Amino acid sequence: MPDRSLEMARRVRTAQRKLASAPAAARDRVLRQLAALLEERSEQLLEENRKDLAEARASGLAAPLLSRLALSGSKLETLRQGVAKLARDRDLLGREIRKTELDEGLVLRQVRSPIGVLLIIFESRPDAVVQIGSLALRSGNGVLLKGGAEALRSNRALIGCLRDAIEAEGLDGDAILGVEGREAAQALLAHDELIDLVIPRGSAELVRSLQAATRIPVLGHADGVCHLYLDASADPEVAARLALDGKCDYPSACNAVETLLVHRNFLPHLDRVARALRQAGVELHADEEALPHCPEAVPAVDEDWSKEYGDLVVAVGTVGSLDEAIDHIHRYGSAHTEAIVATDPEAQRRFLGEVDSASVFANASTRFADGFRYRLGAEVGISTGRIHARGPVGVEGLLTTRWLLEGSGQAAGDYGPGKRAFTHRTLPLA
Amino acid sequence: MPDRSLEMARRVRTAQRKLASAPAAARDRVLRQLAALLEERSEQLLEENRKDLAEARASGLAAPLLSRLALSGSKLETLRQGVAKLARDRDLLGREIRKTELDEGLVLRQVRSPIGVLLIIFESRPDAVVQIGSLALRSGNGVLLKGGAEALRSNRALIGCLRDAIEAEGLDGDAILGVEGREAAQALLAHDELIDLVIPRGSAELVRSLQAATRIPVLGHADGVCHLYLDASADPEVAARLALDGKCDYPSACNAVETLLVHRNFLPHLDRVARALRQAGVELHADEEALPHCPEAVPAVDEDWSKEYGDLVVAVGTVGSLDEAIDHIHRYGSAHTEAIVATDPEAQRRFLGEVDSASVFANASTRFADGFRYRLGAEVGISTGRIHARGPVGVEGLLTTRWLLEGSGQAAGDYGPGKRAFTHRTLPLA
Repeated sequence: MPDRSLEMARRVRTAQRKLASAPAAARDRVLRQLAALLEERSEQLLEENRKDLAEARASGLAAPLLSRLALSGSKLETLRQGVAKLARDRDLLGREIRKTELDEGLVLRQVRSPIGVLLIIFESRPDAVVQIGSLALRSGNGVLLKGGAEALRSNRALIGCLRDAIEAEGLDGDAILGVEGREAAQALLAHDELIDLVIPRGSAELVRSLQAATRIPVLGHADGVCHLYLDASADPEVAARLALDGKCDYPSACNAVETLLVHRNFLPHLDRVARALRQAGVELHADEEALPHCPEAVPAVDEDWSKEYGDLVVAVGTVGSLDEAIDHIHRYGSAHTEAIVATDPEAQRRFLGEVDSASVFANASTRFADGFRYRLGAEVGISTGRIHARGPVGVEGLLTTRWLLEGSGQAAGDYGPGKRAFTHRTLPLA
Repeated sequence: MPDRSLEMARRVRTAQRKLASAPAAARDRVLRQLAALLEERSEQLLEENRKDLAEARASGLAAPLLSRLALSGSKLETLRQGVAKLARDRDLLGREIRKTELDEGLVLRQVRSPIGVLLIIFESRPDAVVQIGSLALRSGNGVLLKGGAEALRSNRALIGCLRDAIEAEGLDGDAILGVEGREAAQALLAHDELIDLVIPRGSAELVRSLQAATRIPVLGHADGVCHLYLDASADPEVAARLALDGKCDYPSACNAVETLLVHRNFLPHLDRVARALRQAGVELHADEEALPHCPEAVPAVDEDWSKEYGDLVVAVGTVGSLDEAIDHIHRYGSAHTEAIVATDPEAQRRFLGEVDSASVFANASTRFADGFRYRLGAEVGISTGRIHARGPVGVEGLLTTRWLLEGSGQAAGDYGPGKRAFTHRTLPLA
């Protein structure tokens, strides 16, 4: 059997290059057309979604998954608004980020370019088709979209909107291709020469299984074991507020607090923090020193320190110093987001300087780690990788650069000791 | 047997974090100390190198490899000057690249940070120890250095200089660790959780074998199949000059021209270009249409189009249009560097806009694709990857970012519809 995945990836690459070299106004129009189609076709889209839902219900899909699978008029309207906003956003392709005169009449520019072909693998939520698809269009990338089997009809209908919007502009709709079936996705994961980036939207298990299955870079994070460190100098009221917000605002979020690290000298104030958490229904797993200060807590075990509960549970550990807190974070954390509560400016400075995580906060909730809150626009995901984008990733994370040099016949052999010298002047950006 | 590689990688990570959180002035002093040690110990270094050379000669190492293995007083002095210059360069760690007010008293900064732990694998040239080691020190990264067996004593002595320079500043010398033996390197390649980036310095075979052996991102390029396209509107004199420089200035360089693509309408002028190449000793492999215009050429075969000769050989292919040239480049090239020779501004614009390679030039030699020529400072390598750095990579390619948020107790749950709104103001950078 011929490997269809190879042909699919090549089709996306070819179409993507046309999309990327079209003028910005063409991508604006594709996005406006997509917004219009989401409105025009809302009845069909909801109808296809109802069929998926009926089948999923019949097959006994769990209630939380059913609710993620369901589209509604208001969900479609939110998606439409997001696309319309993206259509108004500045197109970044070709934008200069560096300009250098190498010599008179020899000018180098570093400009933003799309990464190329993205493989998006998502679970259940059909909204992701539009959210990620529109970001890819904005940034001139091609996309292979693989959704869950339970959302097959919804995904097909939404992918149809994306492709039709591209083709209405006279461009090649293959810049967006749906992938169906686990085998097809597996085959694509082997093509690291044709696919540039894998973006998973779903559970930690999905991310881990993809990281294990491919050599293509995977943007995202598996775990979010985030720490809130209460320094000896912490204001107890701030400590209680940030512990509550960090744990209870949205317990299943990746930026929720999983471990409270408490400086020994703060222990006399810990009961106030612990009581507030307890009243909010949080279960506390405390180490030996913290235990007497935590009402109704159970003793923590080793596994607690690296656990992402994703629920109203928090581990409480005692440390003797800021150094111990930082060591604990580096040892057990997932380098996602950590925060210190402290009034001592030196403790804040050291924590911000030394903690090696994507986001590091002083006296602010870990829950702020988010693309919208960071003003990055629509969010692609949050990356704990150290290569390429790190932390919350917006549309810029879907871009790379190219280096463009314009001259009038210059040869490199004309430069060097005893020959012409480079002027190497920084030029203002366009 | 316990896996020593794991312990080594952990030691580097721990030491690297100390190096990175030390003040910039400390890293300046480490580099100055390194420059001083290279001078003070030059006799010892040359002595160790002589032992390596004697053994390599006895074992029959080829002459070009012997010359790459050899150190000399002047090579050491060049290395010393490079390190001294790096000591004067601006330290980039902690430097702000974005600053946003999320709300009054809640300020987000994106700052430069080291990537973490690099695994450098290089062949023969002991110079690489100092070149890459000093770049790693400047950028706060830790390094595992694996050199060739034939340079064992030279590498050990140079790594000793790096470690002693770090320890003279009271920092942890383990930020630089030498790796000896193929098995140790293989074991390290499995630890993608502890090593962030692999940087190969050596042949295309080395790069390919590393890419196949690890899930850690590999910075660099295997092939450099670079194209020079002679448009219908090309000035024949410029065409001849850039073909000569591109092919002959340094034929084994990755940015040397491997294929001349010629627009059919330029064929009447091709003999001038071909004769210039022939006189410089270049062997021409031409397709059927170009053959009559190329003196002493042999007919090209399919394999010629994707070949990196690395020698005085060039393939010559005929195309009927700019589109055909771009398609050929995307099909056979390695997305390294391509150039157009054209007087037609529209052809230049389209080539620069549509060719999807790391470096794309108009009327300038492909040989300009180089970190020094681009004014990036010392060069880490040239990357054809689309994730992270692309094209010539300087010290910035060894950096990532962290997001630092400073507040006064703000909770994320306080923001949203009907609650506080973000101010999202851009602030000037420090």
